[in-house]
Amino acid sequence: MYTFDEDTRVERQSPGIFQAEVTPHWNVGPVPNGGYVLAVGLAAVQEVLTPPDPVTVTAHYLRPTLVGPATIEVTKIKEGRHATAMAMLTQDGKERVRILATYGDLAEADGPQHIAGAPPEVDRVIFGEDGRPKPPFPVEIHKRFDVQMDKVDSPFGARDRARLAARVRFADGREPDIHSLAVFADSMPPPVFRVTQPGWVPTMELTVHFRARPEPGWLKVAFETRFLFDGYLEEDGEIWDASGQLVALSRQLAGAPRPF
Amino acid sequence: MYTFDEDTRVERQSPGIFQAEVTPHWNVGPVPNGGYVLAVGLAAVQEVLTPPDPVTVTAHYLRPTLVGPATIEVTKIKEGRHATAMAMLTQDGKERVRILATYGDLAEADGPQHIAGAPPEVDRVIFGEDGRPKPPFPVEIHKRFDVQMDKVDSPFGARDRARLAARVRFADGREPDIHSLAVFADSMPPPVFRVTQPGWVPTMELTVHFRARPEPGWLKVAFETRFLFDGYLEEDGEIWDASGQLVALSRQLAGAPRPF
Repeated sequence: MYTFDEDTRVERQSPGIFQAEVTPHWNVGPVPNGGYVLAVGLAAVQEVLTPPDPVTVTAHYLRPTLVGPATIEVTKIKEGRHATAMAMLTQDGKERVRILATYGDLAEADGPQHIAGAPPEVDRVIFGEDGRPKPPFPVEIHKRFDVQMDKVDSPFGARDRARLAARVRFADGREPDIHSLAVFADSMPPPVFRVTQPGWVPTMELTVHFRARPEPGWLKVAFETRFLFDGYLEEDGEIWDASGQLVALSRQLAGAPRPF
Repeated sequence: MYTFDEDTRVERQSPGIFQAEVTPHWNVGPVPNGGYVLAVGLAAVQEVLTPPDPVTVTAHYLRPTLVGPATIEVTKIKEGRHATAMAMLTQDGKERVRILATYGDLAEADGPQHIAGAPPEVDRVIFGEDGRPKPPFPVEIHKRFDVQMDKVDSPFGARDRARLAARVRFADGREPDIHSLAVFADSMPPPVFRVTQPGWVPTMELTVHFRARPEPGWLKVAFETRFLFDGYLEEDGEIWDASGQLVALSRQLAGAPRPF
């Protein structure tokens, strides 16, 4: 069993109540990564809703999640072609994350098309290719990924844009699927580190639009922060699959970097 | 009393239960505008939470809202410097909109700054200036706004980008404040109409990051859809105030345009 699947398993205790184990494998410092915790929550949501694919999902991070057992309570809000649920992730009697999720069927393709974007260029790889070092991210979560990071758009490039672009995949060979995009949406070091000191960037809210089921292979991701001021920042993400299809858009609101 | 204030009034019936009247003044076709309905929901949320400013707010639109009475039930999820609540807007016994909202104090400014963006250029105005016609939007909500729309970035320009930029303010002279940004975030005709037939663009989910309290005067807004395929689109918005400050970022997931 792959790490992602093992670490997002949920067990139904009673209708709408699930038990999960938040592992340390996806930690950033002492805190489990927000995208990983979202994926754990969605593992419970997908047990309750009928349509197969998350379409738009928002998590509000109320308190830091802990490594250890968690209870997830899922309430169905609406059924139908689009179905919506709410999930509450609780540890030690305190709610940690509240999720709103609308599911649908992304294979029901139809309608007009307008694409004004393209996968990021990841041509001048400085980290992660054969014979080159892995990116020096000193956090546990980055052992979960193979990362090839673009030179110019890396956090080690010129400090004019808080942007990074990379190829990424699970390090253990698991292929991406629709639910795993939740963790890829929060998988890279914050691009804001190009323009600030590194530190803890607490995600307050993360929204992911799931747009297509990814094909097997490397994903290409780009993340950018355009507006950091007054203690807050947004981080916008695009995730593209190996076939060149946009598979997810993400945006999070986070606090400005602070010392760990 | 200004229309926006009158049309977003809520009356507390019991702790956490509010009554509102959804008016037809903000309709798009037969359906009240999603940003307006969000503003009605936030009017109830702000009665329950202590911090003054919405910071990040997400609404899931479950069914079309109706003109008429609505009940809003607000549940406090977390108190503190950042406080979070959930709101359910119900009409005729059916839930219409579910909202997650985190509030804070945007005047508590601190931290590093990085701004990679600027207010949109609205120089070549074709509609809305003295002696020029108002934009021909045949929907009720546009009587609520003064709009000056940029020529190139208007929905009537070249059909290569689904983008529009405009100056906008309330038509009755009400100045913008932080809560009114919810309606400005959904105030323009969908920019996707530049690349498709016009029609009904049903908002499934709208997230607004409130970044600063706006100064009085015209707002400048830009909205763009970059990815329309398989029946869904995103619409990204920026709202800037008269002082040149970014005051909100918005993103919605909507269905592709369909006939009314």
